[in-house]
Amino acid sequence: MSKSIVVVGSVAFDHVKTPAGERKESLGGSATYFSYSSSYFAPVKLVAVVGEDFSDKYIRLLNDKGIDTTGLVRQKGGETFRWAGTYEKDINEAVTLATDLNVFADFKPDLPESYRNSEFVFLANIDPDLQLEVLKQVRNPEYVVCDTMNLWINIKRDSLLNLLKKIDLMILNDGEARILTGQKNLIKAGKMVLELGPKTVIIKKGEHGAVAFSGPEIFMVPAYPVQEVVDPTGAGDTFAGGVVGYLCKSGATDFASIKKAMLYGTVMASFNVQDFSLDNLKDLTPKMIDERVQFLRSITSC
Amino acid sequence: MSKSIVVVGSVAFDHVKTPAGERKESLGGSATYFSYSSSYFAPVKLVAVVGEDFSDKYIRLLNDKGIDTTGLVRQKGGETFRWAGTYEKDINEAVTLATDLNVFADFKPDLPESYRNSEFVFLANIDPDLQLEVLKQVRNPEYVVCDTMNLWINIKRDSLLNLLKKIDLMILNDGEARILTGQKNLIKAGKMVLELGPKTVIIKKGEHGAVAFSGPEIFMVPAYPVQEVVDPTGAGDTFAGGVVGYLCKSGATDFASIKKAMLYGTVMASFNVQDFSLDNLKDLTPKMIDERVQFLRSITSC
Repeated sequence: MSKSIVVVGSVAFDHVKTPAGERKESLGGSATYFSYSSSYFAPVKLVAVVGEDFSDKYIRLLNDKGIDTTGLVRQKGGETFRWAGTYEKDINEAVTLATDLNVFADFKPDLPESYRNSEFVFLANIDPDLQLEVLKQVRNPEYVVCDTMNLWINIKRDSLLNLLKKIDLMILNDGEARILTGQKNLIKAGKMVLELGPKTVIIKKGEHGAVAFSGPEIFMVPAYPVQEVVDPTGAGDTFAGGVVGYLCKSGATDFASIKKAMLYGTVMASFNVQDFSLDNLKDLTPKMIDERVQFLRSITSC
Repeated sequence: MSKSIVVVGSVAFDHVKTPAGERKESLGGSATYFSYSSSYFAPVKLVAVVGEDFSDKYIRLLNDKGIDTTGLVRQKGGETFRWAGTYEKDINEAVTLATDLNVFADFKPDLPESYRNSEFVFLANIDPDLQLEVLKQVRNPEYVVCDTMNLWINIKRDSLLNLLKKIDLMILNDGEARILTGQKNLIKAGKMVLELGPKTVIIKKGEHGAVAFSGPEIFMVPAYPVQEVVDPTGAGDTFAGGVVGYLCKSGATDFASIKKAMLYGTVMASFNVQDFSLDNLKDLTPKMIDERVQFLRSITSC
């Protein structure tokens, strides 16, 4: 039986403005992007909370990709988490205009029994106390991956540091790595995150790709060259979905596998940014994914 | 007989402040960094002008690396070009505090006869009319490379466009590529520069590495991971010196060779940024250079 991934994080409705246009009430959230992306590689079990306004069509959208939504709680009388942001000044930097936590404010994840034997765990960017709580509920996790954000680094540092001792792979962005370590130089920052516990660290650099650290080893991959970035929302979680999805599928988590996984993550993110919401992630095929991985390999090797 | 490179550009005294310290009256300038870097690979012939304040010890410093200074004019009664800048806010971005052109203001390059049969030409960032003038004086150039800067893109656009029709390889930075093409997306911008004439374009992205375009081909290389950046002044010209030096040495200028040359350029730049001025470029060995090239290859392939 193939291994599976439990993911906990946000499911949201986004209102996004980019130079390419505007999209209201579009499906988003870290757990959504992660699930959608990783579903191309492995069975995914989603843990999140939504409101009564989260219609069945969205559930179907997830189920159509084989995503298990047993752990997606639809809270009576509640409203789904909403995020509004704009990239109008700089396509590579989101400016948050509004965040309405709604049902997400009192989120207490409780994993269905069918989730608790999963081998892979992805703890998307939520309160590190909740990340720890979810991790406790998985019986015998083989490989635990987490993300975080500036907010938790600043207000829940102790919980985050506690979590990091239990983490195999931390995936975070360059700004977060700098704030977490107080180190501007990204190479030093990466090595310092390793000292906090994770066996491997991947720092995402947006349009500049990603860099991984594991013991003395380093690996660098550029972003996939995309000529029309329509909406970068979710690129980081889509990247993580490709990475963790590939690792779960391949069954190996050594650094050589992590390098390959980063190519898949990079390619999944490249598809994501070419349209709003999940639109360009809906109809991918293994062939489309592999072709981009091959191309990425060709433009980085000599 | 091995092929040689003619380089025309600035030789300057820099006053630099970085988070690591301050250095006054240190040898700098685009042609200096380029020459020093490329001298590890091929014979280099320098064309530039300095003032009477440019003492023999600097000439010796260049000659010690085998750099031909027959074309370095020491102008009586003149003062050497001076540049002052700081990186105190952001190690990756120079803020110019002062530019005194001095003898450089009336620079009219006149190539010594012994330079005119060189096969490779590097036209560093100077007035495109002067770049064209130098190019005219080389009898039968095999491979012509140029750089430029925002100033010339803005005030000498026609001359620059004229020059670009005669260029094999243009090496410029991301900001310059965006201004030259009016295109924010760097992949598009790179392809648009190709349409202006150069057979190959390399866009330098500072700490984020470099990307090359040639016809339909692309190649990306990250910056070499350096934990202590002391002074990034001259990194771009040092990179170009490694690229053009390697191409001249290898005798081939196809895209496969350009890819390899970019690894050498990246490595030379990494040495440069680890100390002020040319200090860390003085005592390199082929073994030190090759070891970093090998490491760079290892962290980018999987």
